[in-house]
Parts: sequence; C-alpha cells; structure tokens
Amino acid sequence: MVSIQQAKQHTIEHNVDFIKKAKDLKPALIRDIIYPSHFVEVVRNEDIVHGWEVKKKEKASSLSSKTYGKGDQFILDFSTHQVGYIKMKVTPIGSPPDAPLHLKLTFGEMPVEMAEPFSTYSGWISSSWLQEETMYIDVLPNNIELSRRYSFRYVKVEVLDTSRKYKITFDDIQCHTVTSANPSEVPSFSYKDELIHTIDKVSMKTLQDCMQEVFEDGPKRDRRLWLGDLRLQALANYKTFQNNDLVKRCLYLFAGVTNTNGQVAANLFISPKLIPDDTYLFDYSLLFVTTLHDYYFYVKDKNTLKDLWPTAYQQIEIALTRLNEQHIVQDSETWWSFIDWNDNLNKQAASQAILIYAIKHAIKLAEVLEDEKVTCLKHQLKEITEATKRHLWDEDKKFFISGENRQVSWASQIWMVLAEVLDPKENNELLHRLLSEKPEIGITTPYMYHYLVEALLLVNEKEKAVKQIKTYWGEMVKDGADTFWELYNPENKSFSPYGSPLINSYCHAWSCTPTYFIREYNM
Amino acid sequence: MVSIQQAKQHTIEHNVDFIKKAKDLKPALIRDIIYPSHFVEVVRNEDIVHGWEVKKKEKASSLSSKTYGKGDQFILDFSTHQVGYIKMKVTPIGSPPDAPLHLKLTFGEMPVEMAEPFSTYSGWISSSWLQEETMYIDVLPNNIELSRRYSFRYVKVEVLDTSRKYKITFDDIQCHTVTSANPSEVPSFSYKDELIHTIDKVSMKTLQDCMQEVFEDGPKRDRRLWLGDLRLQALANYKTFQNNDLVKRCLYLFAGVTNTNGQVAANLFISPKLIPDDTYLFDYSLLFVTTLHDYYFYVKDKNTLKDLWPTAYQQIEIALTRLNEQHIVQDSETWWSFIDWNDNLNKQAASQAILIYAIKHAIKLAEVLEDEKVTCLKHQLKEITEATKRHLWDEDKKFFISGENRQVSWASQIWMVLAEVLDPKENNELLHRLLSEKPEIGITTPYMYHYLVEALLLVNEKEKAVKQIKTYWGEMVKDGADTFWELYNPENKSFSPYGSPLINSYCHAWSCTPTYFIREYNM
Repeated sequence: MVSIQQAKQHTIEHNVDFIKKAKDLKPALIRDIIYPSHFVEVVRNEDIVHGWEVKKKEKASSLSSKTYGKGDQFILDFSTHQVGYIKMKVTPIGSPPDAPLHLKLTFGEMPVEMAEPFSTYSGWISSSWLQEETMYIDVLPNNIELSRRYSFRYVKVEVLDTSRKYKITFDDIQCHTVTSANPSEVPSFSYKDELIHTIDKVSMKTLQDCMQEVFEDGPKRDRRLWLGDLRLQALANYKTFQNNDLVKRCLYLFAGVTNTNGQVAANLFISPKLIPDDTYLFDYSLLFVTTLHDYYFYVKDKNTLKDLWPTAYQQIEIALTRLNEQHIVQDSETWWSFIDWNDNLNKQAASQAILIYAIKHAIKLAEVLEDEKVTCLKHQLKEITEATKRHLWDEDKKFFISGENRQVSWASQIWMVLAEVLDPKENNELLHRLLSEKPEIGITTPYMYHYLVEALLLVNEKEKAVKQIKTYWGEMVKDGADTFWELYNPENKSFSPYGSPLINSYCHAWSCTPTYFIREYNM
Repeated sequence: MVSIQQAKQHTIEHNVDFIKKAKDLKPALIRDIIYPSHFVEVVRNEDIVHGWEVKKKEKASSLSSKTYGKGDQFILDFSTHQVGYIKMKVTPIGSPPDAPLHLKLTFGEMPVEMAEPFSTYSGWISSSWLQEETMYIDVLPNNIELSRRYSFRYVKVEVLDTSRKYKITFDDIQCHTVTSANPSEVPSFSYKDELIHTIDKVSMKTLQDCMQEVFEDGPKRDRRLWLGDLRLQALANYKTFQNNDLVKRCLYLFAGVTNTNGQVAANLFISPKLIPDDTYLFDYSLLFVTTLHDYYFYVKDKNTLKDLWPTAYQQIEIALTRLNEQHIVQDSETWWSFIDWNDNLNKQAASQAILIYAIKHAIKLAEVLEDEKVTCLKHQLKEITEATKRHLWDEDKKFFISGENRQVSWASQIWMVLAEVLDPKENNELLHRLLSEKPEIGITTPYMYHYLVEALLLVNEKEKAVKQIKTYWGEMVKDGADTFWELYNPENKSFSPYGSPLINSYCHAWSCTPTYFIREYNM
C-alpha cells in the first residue's frame, strides 16, 4: 500500500483571468470512426508478456452474419489502440424478444484484460478503473451508444442472457475516436532505420490518444492532467502535432488554481469543474517552471510567459522554504516528491537536483523578461549547488547520496547529471560510472527512462541514447505495444506498483518522448 | 423446463385503422415523486414467507448525513410497492474523486430479492428480469437518473468501489412513479370489515401499478399486455379507476395485429413498435370475446363493439376448427391453452368449457348487434354443450374428465361450472362436490382462483366466495403483500413455475380482482 496525500483543509486561489484564458483555449476534438478488424482469441503462452497471446481469427466483417445466445461471447480486435465511444446495433433473431437482453462489455488495452477476470484484482488503487459495462437492453432492436469513453484495442462481448425465444446479432460495432492531436500537423521525417520509425509511430500514437481536452496522463487511467506528464507531452508535441495552444491551456489551468501559498497542484480535475487535486509534489511543482521554459523557447509566446512567470517563480520560492540550514532539501518518509514509482527510492538527492534544474530554467526566463530576480536566483543557484556538492557528493563512492542512509540510486545520479552540478568532465564521468556500476536502486518507469536519455544526450552520448531508446522502448514494441506503457520493467514485465498488471495503463503520456528525442536530435 | 411456442413463419395482418385508434388512445401517464421512508435490514426467519424478514431501522431522512466507502451497502424501504424511475444525487466527500465511482443497485418487490444473490438463479426464464444495475460514475458530484423503469419496494445500494481518497453521500434518492390509473376516479365504498378493506386497497394498488401505456401483466415481469390478464384487469378497472379508454385501446391493439387466420395473439409487445408475440393460446384468444363482452356491457360503447365484433367472432370460428368429429376440442401435449400454471394439468376440458363460455358471450353481442350469426352460434352452442356432457362428463365420478387419462381437476370443474353446461342444480352440486372432494390436481395461480370465486358467485355462494377471498388473498396480505402476487400457493409459499421465487412477479395483474368482486357484489 503506497502512501497518498490527502488534505483536510484545502483552500484554493482562483485566478479568474487565467481560468478564462484556459477555457477559451479548450480544443475542439477531432473525431473518426474505427471498425474492428478481426475476431481474436486469447490463449495462454508463458513466452508472451503477461502470459497471454492473441490469435487472429476470421475478419470482423462476418460479425453481422452470426447469432449469439445466452453464454456466448467473442472478442474483437480494433487493430490498434483506440480512445473513444462505442456504438453498436443489436437486433433480435427468432421470436419477438420476450425478456431484456443482458450484455457485458469488457475493454482491454492488452490481452491480459481479455483473459483474466477483473474480479481477481485486489490492488490498492480503485478497481473502478477496470473498463467494463454490464447493461440491460429492454427494447430490441436497439442502437446502443455507451456514454463513457474507453481506451482499448480489444472488446470482449458477453451475452449474459437473452431468453429461450430469441438470440441476437451485432451490427456496426464501431468506435468513435476522439483526440485533440491533428496528424496532418506532424512534420515529415527521414528515418534511419525501421525500428526507429516504429518507435516514432508508437510514440506519436501514445501522445495522440492522451491528447484530449487537456494532456491526459493515460486515457484509461487516471485520465487526468499531471504536471510531470505534461512536461514530457509538451516536448513531444512541439516536434509532432504542434497543438501549442493545448500546452498553453494546461499551463493556465495549473496557474489558475494554486493553493494559498501559490503552489501549483500535482494534477488537476477538469470535470464537473476545474479542481486541483490535494496532492502537491516537490518535483512536479518545480516542473511547472521547466514546462513554461520549454513552452517559451519553442513557441516564443512572450505574453503567456509574462502572465505565468510570477506563478513559475513562486514554485522556486516555495521549494526554497524546504531547504534546511545546510541548503539541502529536507527529506521525508511521506509521498512528498514523485521522481519514480519506486518504494525503495530515497527522493532527497533527485529532488535537490530538480530544484537546481528548475532554478536554471527560471534564470533563463528571468533573463528574457529582464527581471531583476535573476540576481537573486543566480545567488541561490550558487549557494545550493555548492551545498549539494558538499553534503550530497560522496567522494569515496564517487556518487551522489540521498537521505539518512546515504542511498546511491540511478534517479539521484541522473537528475544530478541533468542539473549539471559537477563540471562537464565530471558530469560525463558520473553518467558513465552509473552505467557501468549499475547501483541496485534502479529505474521503474518510462518517465525516469526519459530523463536517463535526456542525461545521455546532455553529456553528448547520442549513440548510447539511441541504443537506450531502442533497447527499452524497442523492447516494448517487440512485446506488442501499440502505444507505450505506463510501466515497463524488462526484467519483470508484469510489474505493477498497484498490485496487478490488469490496472496498469498501456497508453501513458510519460512514455511518449522517443518521438521528441528522435526528431529533436535527428536519431 | 416448460414448453414454449415459437413460430418459424409468423405473418401478421395489420389493421391500420385499428392501430391508429389504439395509438390515439395512448394514455398520458400520471407521475408522482416518492421518497424512501426507512433503512431496513433483511434477516433470516423461517416463519416468514421465503424465509426473510424485514426489520425497520432508522428513518431514511438521515441518509444525507451518512458517508459510504468501498464495500458499504444499505437497503432503503419505499413504504410500499412502486413503479417508476430512480433519481439520486451522489456527492463525494474527502479529496477530489480520483477514480470513478462503481455502484450497484438492486431492486426488490420482496425481501428475498434483497437477501439472496441473483447469481443463485438458474431457472428457465430469462435471468434478465432480475432488477439490478451496475454502473460507473466518472464525474462527481452527479445527479444520477436511471433510464430503466423498476418495480420495487426495496432498493439495495452497494458501493463497489470509490478510491482511498474519497467516500460518497447520497441525497434525494427518489422514485418518479408512473401509472395511467387515476385514484381520484375510484368510487367511494363502505367496507364491511377491515380485512376486506385491506384486500381492496391492495387489489387496487396492484391494478394501479400494472396500468401503464397498456394493461401490463406485471411491471417487473413480463411488462406486457396479455389477453388473460387484460380480461381480469378490465373487470377490476370498471369498478375502480374507470380508465375505460385503456381497455378500448388494448382491444384495438389485439385486433390490429392478428395472424393471417384472424387469430389474436396471446400477448403483444408495444416497443419499439406494436408486435404480436408468436404465442397463440386457445383460451386466451377466446377471452377476447369475453373481454369485448364485458367492455360493451360496462361502457355501452356500441361503435367499438361494431368495429371489433368481426375479430371477436373470428376467435370463435378459429376455435371451432379445433373440434374433432365428436365436437370436443382436440387435446395436445404442447402449450396450446393456458388455463393455469400447472404442468400436470390436462387442459382439454377447461378449454372446451371456455369455448362454451365465449360462445355464450358472443351470442349476447350478436343479439345487441342484431347479427344473423346468432342463429348459427346458438346451434353450435347446443351441439357442443351436448357433446361435452356426452363425452367429458363421467357419470360415476360425477366430475368432468379431461384428456386421454380422464383427469379430474379443479380447473376443469370450475370452467365447466362457469360454462353452465349442467342445469343450475347440477351445476351447484358440482361445485360443492369439487370443494368437498378436493381432487389432487389443484389451483396454482390467483388467475385460476379468480375463476373459482366467479364460479362460487355464479352458483349463489356469495358467503363462500367472500371466505375464499379472505383465506387466499387475505393470507397473502398477512404474508406482507403490498400488491398481489403472480403466484401464491398457501401450501408452498416459495412455489415458482420458473425455478425460483426470485423471479416471480409480486405485483401481477391477474391477482387484482378482489376489488372487482368486493365492489361488484358488495362484499
């Protein structure tokens, strides 16, 4: 059971102007209609991820010629990952239907969701994320339109009951997809090899399916705007769909509902109205600065920068209050900073590094705005950088340590490399030392893998970065990813921090950045 | 497993004029809003019908002050039987809801439906009649409006999941009831005792809840217009709500969609359009004549009689084709005639009696219309009555026998009494002989009990009729009936012809006739 944040008192400052600007930028969704391609069956195969293999059967176009009665079921494959609304026509065959139709639909991004009953899930996050619907249809024939949006490739249809007097046929099962990403905006690109091409396509599909009225983290779960995900989605977006207004909207949304200290929340709810979650994460709040920095330098929209700079600066101010007298961020046992999904990871050093990383971005923005705060920021940067080397650098181990137990982790080193605390030569050596010594506390999410690749590129190890992308995201492709997954541990492919791979998200924003790397660094 | 009728070819004659008249008579439904009165719990008690006792807990007005999380459940009591649509407000308590709400509602006319899981049902009619809904609510707070109509007194609410960060409260759970029966039309009546008063109230509530856009057999199951039920509902209606246009509408509906022989179906579907079921029952088709007879003599609407008389006469003609050369209806192992829910009952004699009963009603209608068919009908009546006495009367047993095995049943004698095949004295003696000798093949439904009471009144045994109503329907009242039930066997109160009392209907049209008897015969 992972700790959560929950505020008893949660007072929000509403910036009406920012909220209005965000609302005015609400995108019109692009819609398409997708039909299933095949019937499939899912069979046990221990060599396949999660132990379930999909076997293609006949074409789905034969669906309308089949009749189904009580206890019958079938699985349809929609060719690739889809996000949208399901419609279908159900027609009775036989006598006039003398009882309601009882139907169950199960949606799966992955074969495991078609094979293992959702009732087996007993993890700590809500089972309500598992996508299924049980319904009674009183009037037949009927055009069924499910009101909820689903994220899936596979749909299992189970006829729980009809009556002895009638069976049913299904016609026109279709998915009305939605996205705010326009594929025609994607610049053309010359790929160096087929794997990079595939990884780029899967990255873009991941981003596309997460781009809705906001950048969602995952269209299956949590369907929500998280700051850590937003930063990465925005990067991928600038190089692909270029819906820069959506980034702008999300920045205004975060700035529109801070807490009374001015801190931006880790994530926001949009429906039924804009509500910030009562979770505040040290690193995520600082990534607001970085996201604004990236936005400005890609989009050159100075008005937005001027509007949002005070909010960005405030995140630095708030973070600084967490420093102890030695200028090191105070550690805690609680869920105070995200960094990575790893219960064994101490977050102190990585959080310290992210503060430095954010201050550096803040300085660049202050310089653009010719804000006198730049002096103060530079002073803080110097003091904190020196304190970091003094207190968190272990001269014997030649690694940054974190927390009371002086933990050496991948996350700490990667973020310290990105923060450029050491000089360029030492920084380069640190990353190589990390790759050769491989400390035990590793990386669990594609989110953290992104920052590993970012660090490799920073120290001019483009070839290693390409290799990392090919081995990590490429392996996911080999494992059948239509979109990149929330969690992927090549050593334990069924890993879930939530208790079951059933509830993992298999189209997850923070995994979409290979397209950014490929296109930004011409890989 | 009971046999059903299912037609491979089913051609329907549509009488456009009749269908239009029926459509023009579609009633506006009367709506009301009902709130639950109490929380209740259902506990095991073998002395109570089905073994389940309801215990009142606190008032339902305290609902909105309670919060519910994963795994919590409660049962609300709506005071008496209701038919309508459920609305409620669900509000999250705690952090902003970070996962959908997964909710299950179970509706029950009887405590057993609250206590025994529907998954235990494995009977031969569709489990889809069991009233439950499982739903996911993505946006909270939410005003939930369930689209289906339910028939219930109790609602069980189960919170299947929220998340670790929020719980929920329920507000304003309400039932928007619907009926085409207007209670202000019911004539006042002086009751002789309290039990009769209660039986009358429960009868009227039964009828009221079955009166919708047509006379339904049961608002829980089958929610459909059946001819056998219609005849009895119409009788009760003339003495109470007097929505005579609804009877007229139902008669036109049946006459509007006969088969190519002109036979009216046993029941009709109204949605998505008017469709006759492919079930044709010998006795039910003949009851069209009787229902038209009753309608004319209560309402004196000669235009409708003129319109529908050819259809009525045609039912006699069709029935006559089933007579063998001895003028006795041909028996069959199939489900050719309804009479009663009793697998062991031979239907031949009762069906023969219903033919005679219907011919007598037809003669009265022919006389009103001065139709020359009256001569032919009288001739037929004489021939069939004589044949009945010759071939179906057992002079040794002094009972009418039925089928190859010369079965002596209650149903055969009751219908022969009603057909008045014997002279008045013999007829009276036959009924008394039945009551004293009590043949083994008994009565299983209130529908058949109605005809027993009708027979008692025919032979001037009003006191016995009152006693029968008090012992049979009165016992149901003692067993907690808010509305009268589809099935009631005082010797086996959990009897169901469908495999489980869970699926029985506990508000069933054919049980509503005590109010007719009480008011027509001033009981």
